[in-house]
Order: sequence, then structure tokens, then C-alpha cells
Amino acid sequence: MKVALIQMQVASSPAENLQTARTHLKDAAAGGADIAVLPEMFCCPYETPNFPRFAQKEGDEIWQALSEMAKENSLYLVAGSVPEDDDGKTYNTSYVFDPEGKCIAKHRKVHLFDIDVKGGQRFMESETLTAGDSLTTFDTPWGKMGLCICYDIRFPEWMRLMALEGAKAVFIPAAFNMTTGPAHWELSFRARALDNQIYLFGCAPARDMDASYHSWGHSIATNPWGEVMAQLDETEGILFAHADFQREDAIRDQLPLLRHRRVDLYELREIKK
Amino acid sequence: MKVALIQMQVASSPAENLQTARTHLKDAAAGGADIAVLPEMFCCPYETPNFPRFAQKEGDEIWQALSEMAKENSLYLVAGSVPEDDDGKTYNTSYVFDPEGKCIAKHRKVHLFDIDVKGGQRFMESETLTAGDSLTTFDTPWGKMGLCICYDIRFPEWMRLMALEGAKAVFIPAAFNMTTGPAHWELSFRARALDNQIYLFGCAPARDMDASYHSWGHSIATNPWGEVMAQLDETEGILFAHADFQREDAIRDQLPLLRHRRVDLYELREIKK
Repeated sequence: MKVALIQMQVASSPAENLQTARTHLKDAAAGGADIAVLPEMFCCPYETPNFPRFAQKEGDEIWQALSEMAKENSLYLVAGSVPEDDDGKTYNTSYVFDPEGKCIAKHRKVHLFDIDVKGGQRFMESETLTAGDSLTTFDTPWGKMGLCICYDIRFPEWMRLMALEGAKAVFIPAAFNMTTGPAHWELSFRARALDNQIYLFGCAPARDMDASYHSWGHSIATNPWGEVMAQLDETEGILFAHADFQREDAIRDQLPLLRHRRVDLYELREIKK
Repeated sequence: MKVALIQMQVASSPAENLQTARTHLKDAAAGGADIAVLPEMFCCPYETPNFPRFAQKEGDEIWQALSEMAKENSLYLVAGSVPEDDDGKTYNTSYVFDPEGKCIAKHRKVHLFDIDVKGGQRFMESETLTAGDSLTTFDTPWGKMGLCICYDIRFPEWMRLMALEGAKAVFIPAAFNMTTGPAHWELSFRARALDNQIYLFGCAPARDMDASYHSWGHSIATNPWGEVMAQLDETEGILFAHADFQREDAIRDQLPLLRHRRVDLYELREIKK
């Protein structure tokens, strides 16, 4: 399974951003990608007031454009995330389209990012966003995949639940910042991949020092042994990476972490709404 | 709270190992340690047939000697781990003594290490050991502390349960090997500390290339921001490290991971036996 992480520069207009995504997706397809991934909030600058301003309903223009891009390039598209309007509420939503352009999954960011680091970053998503309430997986020819957004990765319970549901890889549109990025980005991807013995693919916007939110970039692919397979720097580009699920099975066989869980001593369960 | 991690060389006789521990503990006390930590299976070489051979009951000679060492040096002693005999079963057990020599906690390794890496390490603890079945914390003047042993760290559920029970730091006598050590030791300590916003202290035996099991060593202290505070190499030595719980509170305040858990969407609970 060949994955293309599209670390694109985000401009102020959705139309321009869709055009950028379109150009990169052609390159991803030309490079042989089976699955392409866009960054979190790739279609508007990452500022809380923008989310309701640019929010669209499922099925509206942005959604349509993304569906078409998947179909045109005949690949699975984990379409980063966009602000979704539903009944007056705004969600940070990731759609997944199959190579026919059909929307096969939708994840609304479950853990909203509210941070206030002394001398560092302050950002309060909950000022304009509503949190989702569902675990998201989807089926592909390579097996079941998981999907979550940025801050969701911080919570080991959430990744574990996806792995226990059978996700063999998890896609994470994300946008860590200049405080949490250098400190925690690579560490979080390596550790979650190792603990759950899965592949992880994180796709971030390229850094724009003229924007108010400075993305760490560093789109990344980690493997079930906890290694970084490949990682970009902060500039615009596409990262190609392979997931080898035979290797995943071999690692799970040799170091059977998931089988060694003491399910007689602890229970982790999803509470469905 | 000043911690001393005693990365000692393990010889073949328990008496010799207790003497080594005694010497190092004097140095730890002289260095101002409030809490000293010994490695996993510090009193016999780390080989599965040794565990039943050297196992003693709680309260027997080794336990007595450890209690006396805590008292003599007037410090808390997380006494690594020893093979414990109870009713014909052998456990990998860590005792904790207070500065009066009173045993205030006891953890039996809950996750047994059975690994068979192709071209790497093969080790099957379950051939001679029985697993424990309890989560272990204990109270100190600095707050509640957690305790687990080596492979227990691999399971995010276990560390999370200790943190949720109020552990502000967790002590981990351990002995990663030359396969898992370079790949996963530092990563696991950094990630568990970060995810749970706690201090972690891992104490391993020094490496002995004449022994059958080669310890990775690298005794380590990680902080609630996911950083390595200090780490040894593979040789014998004492690592001193400070836990600053005001810093822990500040980190939890600025990046409130534990408060942001979606307890309406997932439940992690201990099943008490």
C-alpha cells in the first residue's frame, strides 16, 4: 500500500487551496499512490474564527471537489480536514473518498485542542468548534484503516480502540505547532505506532510564517516497530511511504503486545452514542 | 524529590549482589537521595531457570536485608525485583520499603515477557514465572507513586490506570535487552511520561557480556513533558534525578491532557481480582 502525504501550503481562499490540492494529487497519482492524504484544515488558514466562516455542509462544493479529485486520480483520498457545518454547529471533519469518488468515511475531531503554554502556544478550538463523538474506521483492499485528527493522537485510549477494532494503519491529518511540534510530534507518532503495532501516517500543512498559526510540518510515516520510515521538513512537498502489512504481521507475531494485554485485569471500551 | 537509580552489575550469587546493592545505597544516601531504586532481578542473573531456584518468601533473608538497607540509609527503597516464592509459585516481585524499613508496597509483574524476535531475542518468562494481578501504588511525603516492572511499561492501559489513581511518578525496575533496548526503551519512557504527564524512573542492571542475558542498561529518568532528564550508558553507575512536582502541575495546567480525555466516549477501568 503506497501512501502519499501532501504537505501543502495553505492560502487564504478555499478555491486556491483546492487548486493546490488538485495539482499535488496529480503528482501523487503519477507517483503511484494508492492513498493520498491532505493536511488538517487545508482549505482555510488555521484560525478559530475561520472555522465557522468557511464551514460547508457535507455534499457542498468543497466536498464535491474532493470527491471528484479522488475519482479523477483513481485513488483513495483521506481529504485532510475541513470545517463542516451541520445544523449551525461547526466540526473539524475529515472525509474519505474511494477511487470512484464515493465518500466511505467521515471523522469529526473528537478531542478539541485547547492549549495555553506559558511562553508558548495559546489556541482554543472549542471557542468555535463542536467535538465529534465517534470512532472512525473504513475498509480498503488492504484491510481496515483508522482515521483521526491531530489532537486525537494524544489519547492512547483512542488509538488503541481503533487498533482493537482491526485498524492496520491510521491516517492523521494534523497541524502541530512550533511548541508541541518539536517536543511531541515524532514521539507521539512513534509511540502510538509501536504500542499498537500499526502504521501511522500524519499529514500537516507546510509552514507559513506569514500565517498566524505556524504549522510544524514534518509530515511523517511510522511503522509498527516504532521507527520513522520517512519525514518531511517544514516546506511544501509530497512524502511517499509504503505500508508492508506482512511485516506488521511478523512484528505482531514476534512481540505479541496486543495478545499480551491483560484483558482479565483491565477493560477499555468505547461508549457508543 | 531526589531519586537515585542504581544500575548495578549483577553477579551469580545473591549474597554478592546484596553486598553490591548495599555499597551503592550508601553512595545514594550520601548523594542526598530520597528514594533509591534497584534494577529488575538484581539478585540473580536474568535467566528463567534462576527464578524458581533463587525464589524466597516475603519476609525471608533477602527481604530482611533490603528492609535493613532502607532503614540504615534512611530512604525509600524501591528494591528492584526478586523472585518471590508463594505457595510453590514464583513471581517477579518488587518490594518498596520506607525509611524505617517497613514494607509499604509490593508489585508482582503483571505482564510476563515472552518474546521471539526473528534474528533477535528469544525469552519466555512464562516458562517459570506466574503473573501478578494487581495495580500497585504507594504513598510518600511527595504524593502517590506508581510501581511496575519492565514489560508492564509496554501497556498504555496499565500506566494510565496508575496515573488515574493519582500516581505522580512511576518507578520501573526493568531489564530491556539488546534488541528491544535500542529500539524501544527511551521511546517507551518518554511516551508514557508525556501521555500521563508524570515522571518515570527506569532502573536496569549494568550490561554483562559474560551473562546469558545482555541488559541494555541505560537507566533513565523522563519528565511530564516527554523529555529525557538523564540517562546512563550500559556501565555500572548511579543516576541521580530530581522530580519537580510544581513543574508537573504547571504542564498539566497548560496542556490538560488528562482533563481532555473523552470519558463520555471511552472507559478504561481496572478489573479487581
